Amino acid sequence: MRRAVLPVSLLLLAASVTANAQAKPEDIIRYRKSAYTVLLWNWMPMNAMVRDRIPFDTAEFARRAERVAAISPQLLEGFPEGSGSGAPTEAKPEIWTDFADFTTLMKDLERESAALATIAKGGDEAKMREQFAKVGGTCKACHDKYKAE
Amino acid sequence: MRRAVLPVSLLLLAASVTANAQAKPEDIIRYRKSAYTVLLWNWMPMNAMVRDRIPFDTAEFARRAERVAAISPQLLEGFPEGSGSGAPTEAKPEIWTDFADFTTLMKDLERESAALATIAKGGDEAKMREQFAKVGGTCKACHDKYKAE
Repeated sequence: MRRAVLPVSLLLLAASVTANAQAKPEDIIRYRKSAYTVLLWNWMPMNAMVRDRIPFDTAEFARRAERVAAISPQLLEGFPEGSGSGAPTEAKPEIWTDFADFTTLMKDLERESAALATIAKGGDEAKMREQFAKVGGTCKACHDKYKAE
Repeated sequence: MRRAVLPVSLLLLAASVTANAQAKPEDIIRYRKSAYTVLLWNWMPMNAMVRDRIPFDTAEFARRAERVAAISPQLLEGFPEGSGSGAPTEAKPEIWTDFADFTTLMKDLERESAALATIAKGGDEAKMREQFAKVGGTCKACHDKYKAE
């Protein structure tokens, strides 16, 4: 049902908020950077534990792992077609020419970070360290190919 | 166990990543803005449904509600003592003078957004709309007091 009485400006506003896929490139880029910032914020305390910079706190580790697992599946929607420019971004154009491969790497992160959250609930420090490295590997695999320096 | 052989610069770096509470104010501010950006990104499609700008999709609504419920409890740690300046921020100084009240309002958001996620799983559109308004009320209550224009 169309709302013919709405002025054009309001219709445009409505369109911009209807689906995030229709958001402006700069808003999409801000979104995806934000999602990575939230991921990294939770990643760092785990990293400090794994590197023995702070005492290993299994409960805190599990809390952070849960948050990384929650944000990881939210990254991919930050890369719709057409969001390769419009604001400063480290996303390489290859993301959109090799999108199937990019998606596979993102799914690797989702799967391994979900596994980390599950393992962390068990509280076995050795297993948490091992799986943390695996998740880190999925980060690196994607950055090496698709993130500019 | 201290690592006395590490140079001071490395020790400082280690300290900065040990606990996020020790992060620099500008990093903390970037984190909290990012968390709000992620929240809003997921809020907007629900808002468009509730305002009848797009068709009401209960599954998509539930997915977004789940994400808002996941990020909401992550906001408060973006406001440690000493993070009131250091980068542009809309956070009013009253946050830190009335921190107990600010915390209460944050907990209201956590509770109501968790309820929204639960209700949304049930798929009752009327109840989802009602609870969405309740969550929106908790946003507004906090913004009115603690967010600068």
